[in-house]
Amino acid sequence: MLPAPSPCEGEREKEMATLRVPLQVPSAVEDAKNLRMACEGWGTDEKTLIDILAHRDAAQRLQIIQSYEDLYNENLIKRLESEISGDFEKALYCWMFNQVQRGAIIANMALKKELDYRVIVETACINSTKELLAVKQAYHDHFKHSLEEDVAAKTTGDLRMLLVGLVSTYRYDGKEIDNSLALSEANILHDVIRKKLFNHDEVIRIFTTRSKAQLIATFNIYKDEHGISISKDLSSGSPDLFPSVLQVVVRSIISPHKYFEKLLRLALNKEEADENALARIIVTRAEKDLQEIKNIYEERANMSLIDAIDNKTSGNYKYFILELIGN
Amino acid sequence: MLPAPSPCEGEREKEMATLRVPLQVPSAVEDAKNLRMACEGWGTDEKTLIDILAHRDAAQRLQIIQSYEDLYNENLIKRLESEISGDFEKALYCWMFNQVQRGAIIANMALKKELDYRVIVETACINSTKELLAVKQAYHDHFKHSLEEDVAAKTTGDLRMLLVGLVSTYRYDGKEIDNSLALSEANILHDVIRKKLFNHDEVIRIFTTRSKAQLIATFNIYKDEHGISISKDLSSGSPDLFPSVLQVVVRSIISPHKYFEKLLRLALNKEEADENALARIIVTRAEKDLQEIKNIYEERANMSLIDAIDNKTSGNYKYFILELIGN
Repeated sequence: MLPAPSPCEGEREKEMATLRVPLQVPSAVEDAKNLRMACEGWGTDEKTLIDILAHRDAAQRLQIIQSYEDLYNENLIKRLESEISGDFEKALYCWMFNQVQRGAIIANMALKKELDYRVIVETACINSTKELLAVKQAYHDHFKHSLEEDVAAKTTGDLRMLLVGLVSTYRYDGKEIDNSLALSEANILHDVIRKKLFNHDEVIRIFTTRSKAQLIATFNIYKDEHGISISKDLSSGSPDLFPSVLQVVVRSIISPHKYFEKLLRLALNKEEADENALARIIVTRAEKDLQEIKNIYEERANMSLIDAIDNKTSGNYKYFILELIGN
Repeated sequence: MLPAPSPCEGEREKEMATLRVPLQVPSAVEDAKNLRMACEGWGTDEKTLIDILAHRDAAQRLQIIQSYEDLYNENLIKRLESEISGDFEKALYCWMFNQVQRGAIIANMALKKELDYRVIVETACINSTKELLAVKQAYHDHFKHSLEEDVAAKTTGDLRMLLVGLVSTYRYDGKEIDNSLALSEANILHDVIRKKLFNHDEVIRIFTTRSKAQLIATFNIYKDEHGISISKDLSSGSPDLFPSVLQVVVRSIISPHKYFEKLLRLALNKEEADENALARIIVTRAEKDLQEIKNIYEERANMSLIDAIDNKTSGNYKYFILELIGN
């Protein structure tokens, strides 16, 4: 579904991934057999599950799932779900899929119970146009209806307009920028944000239809012209949800790495770590660019991400997450 | 971009097309040379242009364009634009492209000057999910920005919410239907339409996010439960634009053929035929399903489509359009 990354992109991604695959990987059949053994008998041997699965890439995990199915006529993911529980289960479950399928599953989870709008914004704004499309196709295949329907059913009013608009739109992905448009739209945004009209039609139009390159140009001009970043303007003095959602859009479009890094700090600075958010970031980025996020974290938090997670989490969850970070 | 149609679909489409390609087609080079001759000298020989181009399919037209470029280092479409004018030029220009590129071009034309909302609804609702996506990709390639942006910039308020929603959404394309959902949403629609709250959030949500199969189920239940079709309910007693646009959405989702047939009758029943709408329908459907639309027309209007067009149009425009209809 996704076009193959260019060799350059692939290389860069590999460098920035934290996933460590051993030089000598056992065959998928061997892995499947060892996983089966770890699941059988009294109690599950979670350490073995993690030692295998946290060190195989998406293609290898898929082969293991197929071999397991062939050998035991059983779905490995379902078996794992029945063996383990809690945040560890959820994290390992998400890890088993490839990036695109996982994107669909995580978006669907965010629409269950209480809406997690951050995940919806991430799905819409951090993925490229092609990646978002692939996630939406996977959503159709998996859930037999559209992401748009589920976001719309879970929201109302302006938040619906914004979030449905964000997940729907097929943004132009080119680099061309119209500078005079950026200036006029920076001024429109500044006007309405200063009047606290965050939910203004024009805000929704600009955020949901312009290309990311165009939006970044608009945000840059906003700062140059008005002496304050749009992100700060959105956060100042309003306790409402809507401007917070807009701020997440801005930050995830300007820099996904910095956005995720800040989420990690928030998740780890709580009295009890937000294991849900933590796992989402680690699992979705470990095979992609977690090293970059980790570097920014270590600069800003003045401690290593590994130490921070080590202090704040425990058990199999901790062991799994730390293995993915490249402990 | 579009997946190849299955053999069955391809065959059905061929049967329902009105385009007639001769059994013995000259080579693309020969066609290109004859087109060049028709363009040169005093005055253009429009009849020759039509005799060639109105009887070549999309693949053949593309080959002719390439041969013409190779032979004369000139873009055939630009040359044609400079040789002819008016509604004939516009019709022939649109015809030169394949279905997907033409979809992007026609949508863009509908956003120039006065908005032609019908074309935007047709683009969004008559195309399948995959076809709409292909048109939007072609729009990016051709215009270097998105269809969503242009629709949003050309509209305001509720009409913007509706039209941008329609062109944005990646509808689920499967056949599964949730009957209890159809019942509850038929009732929601009936409630708000009866209160003349056409622009209600829920109307926009349902129209812009549900799959076509689900919407058709909802419209059917609407009629069964309330004794009147949603289309009639939308048309009764409101002179506003918004319910008319909703009605176009309903009709183009329920039956594109009947929708186009009615448009043809409207275009031809005017004092002066609406050559713009007429050409749009003929050019976009000639290679696809115009025979079916023509059959319905002849049943309902009690005269052949060819006679109706013959009575109401003239000149090269008429000759071209009639050739496409299979005169």
